Amino acid sequence: MQIIITGGAGFLGQRLAKAFTDGNFDFKSLQLVDQVMPANPANDHRIECRQADLTEDGVIKTILKPDTSLLFHLAAVVSSHAERDFDLGWKVNLDLTRQLLEACRHHNPSIRFVFASSLAVYGGLLPETVGDTTALTPLSSYGSQKAMGELLVNDYSRKKFVDGRVLRLPTVCIRPGRPNQAASSFVSSIIREPLNGEEALCPVSPELALWLSSPDTVIQNIIHGALLDASAFGAWRSVNLPGLRVTVKDMLDALGKVAGRNTLDKIQFKPDPAINNIVSSWPGRIDNDPALKLGFQADRLFEDFIRQYLQSYQSRP
Amino acid sequence: MQIIITGGAGFLGQRLAKAFTDGNFDFKSLQLVDQVMPANPANDHRIECRQADLTEDGVIKTILKPDTSLLFHLAAVVSSHAERDFDLGWKVNLDLTRQLLEACRHHNPSIRFVFASSLAVYGGLLPETVGDTTALTPLSSYGSQKAMGELLVNDYSRKKFVDGRVLRLPTVCIRPGRPNQAASSFVSSIIREPLNGEEALCPVSPELALWLSSPDTVIQNIIHGALLDASAFGAWRSVNLPGLRVTVKDMLDALGKVAGRNTLDKIQFKPDPAINNIVSSWPGRIDNDPALKLGFQADRLFEDFIRQYLQSYQSRP
Repeated sequence: MQIIITGGAGFLGQRLAKAFTDGNFDFKSLQLVDQVMPANPANDHRIECRQADLTEDGVIKTILKPDTSLLFHLAAVVSSHAERDFDLGWKVNLDLTRQLLEACRHHNPSIRFVFASSLAVYGGLLPETVGDTTALTPLSSYGSQKAMGELLVNDYSRKKFVDGRVLRLPTVCIRPGRPNQAASSFVSSIIREPLNGEEALCPVSPELALWLSSPDTVIQNIIHGALLDASAFGAWRSVNLPGLRVTVKDMLDALGKVAGRNTLDKIQFKPDPAINNIVSSWPGRIDNDPALKLGFQADRLFEDFIRQYLQSYQSRP
Repeated sequence: MQIIITGGAGFLGQRLAKAFTDGNFDFKSLQLVDQVMPANPANDHRIECRQADLTEDGVIKTILKPDTSLLFHLAAVVSSHAERDFDLGWKVNLDLTRQLLEACRHHNPSIRFVFASSLAVYGGLLPETVGDTTALTPLSSYGSQKAMGELLVNDYSRKKFVDGRVLRLPTVCIRPGRPNQAASSFVSSIIREPLNGEEALCPVSPELALWLSSPDTVIQNIIHGALLDASAFGAWRSVNLPGLRVTVKDMLDALGKVAGRNTLDKIQFKPDPAINNIVSSWPGRIDNDPALKLGFQADRLFEDFIRQYLQSYQSRP
């Protein structure tokens, strides 16, 4: 079994590769592909790191191997970036997804194609609890592109051109490193920066409700989604991965509890309408039941997110 | 004001052009574009008929005029055809829609872009009455392509790149002429052929519920959708045009009433799984209220559909 991860240099791509190594999964090779050279996140000779622009003609063909059986398509132009650079967003988030599906269809239609979608497919007037039957009316180009990618993966799966799985990710935090161009980047920043003794700006109100997953949980769920039998999904391949509803205020209360009230002094509220427009259009609560029934896991407390971050990135020997 | 109608040789394109002429609308010119040369449906010198393949490079540019302000995008590869020819379906139903939006964006973003979508965007497990908030989980490539076109038109409208309007058409009947490659083609055939003294095959069960609009009503509604102020649509530009729920049995009862019970002898039931799969995945009832509130019109009786057909196509001098 050969595995491919697009967006392999990214936070989730790296964590996913590491999980495959740590979990003693039986695979022959795992290819991390990205525009920038991915690091090898584990001392595992089965991991191949590859710098390539998949949007260039003919490149996709070069990553597919005779025994490729699982492809995680994580590469994306993130939300605020896609909102600012309209053409790039469509090129990567829609066209690349379609080109990968076409390549798999003609290479080997039994490839499991795991597409990372996002809660950003939802938007506008939403019910208090969003569910599988809620219409997708995204109010961002990123959300529109992901919603269209979902339709593509579903139609290719229905036609048996790939064995697709669409996993809608909650906002994942706490991400390590620096802020990125996701509208939700602040969700990690307002915890991570104070923990590291740095200032952070919060562009939204303390009352805003967010729908979150911790990195450990989301990685576990992405792998679970790949390993599930296709029949478990029924006629529609899109699943809302479980999340936890937390307001910004809840997050800061937990931060104070875990790291001391004085860390909160590092956070300044400074409204940013562009970010607010996007993030407040996303749902604050999604029904976890369908995913839990399929065996996906849920986080329980936001304090655990903070402890997970501290364990993973601050107390390493 | 210059108007463009793609799919201008088709049944709806021709009817729409004629309605613009008959209705004394104030327009300077109206261009009917299609792969086959469209007829001029009225003796109106303002109607220009143009044979062109819009999917060929550079052709779209040649149809946009300095004063183009309204474009009806009706051209499509219909449902059974798109199911059989997967690649052609995506090329026309998705790529051409996107290319037209791009061309309008760069030509004049105030162009009203009226996109003919379809009830085929719905599919799978549906509530008894489908509504604006029902998720789009289409079980045909045609429905997937139309659903993606809707997302495109909505995002281009949100970004103010066009002034888009998405009108989801019920199954339109009774169409004149010969059967086409729409899965719903039989819906017209089972009435039209017996009226013309010909045999017809019905590929579905008499109990199947259909969601229908008559040609006069749908044309009136398409024009209404074009003339409505953008603000009427709110944040989401997709509207389910009103329809009438009728079972196949109801249709045949009405046919017997209007044209005599003996016409029913012309109809043979011969199940066709390919057609059944597609048509039975579509909703049999959609909530008309949102469209009625926007001033769209609804049909009332299926017998009126038959009379409309007889008046339009059989009693012409």
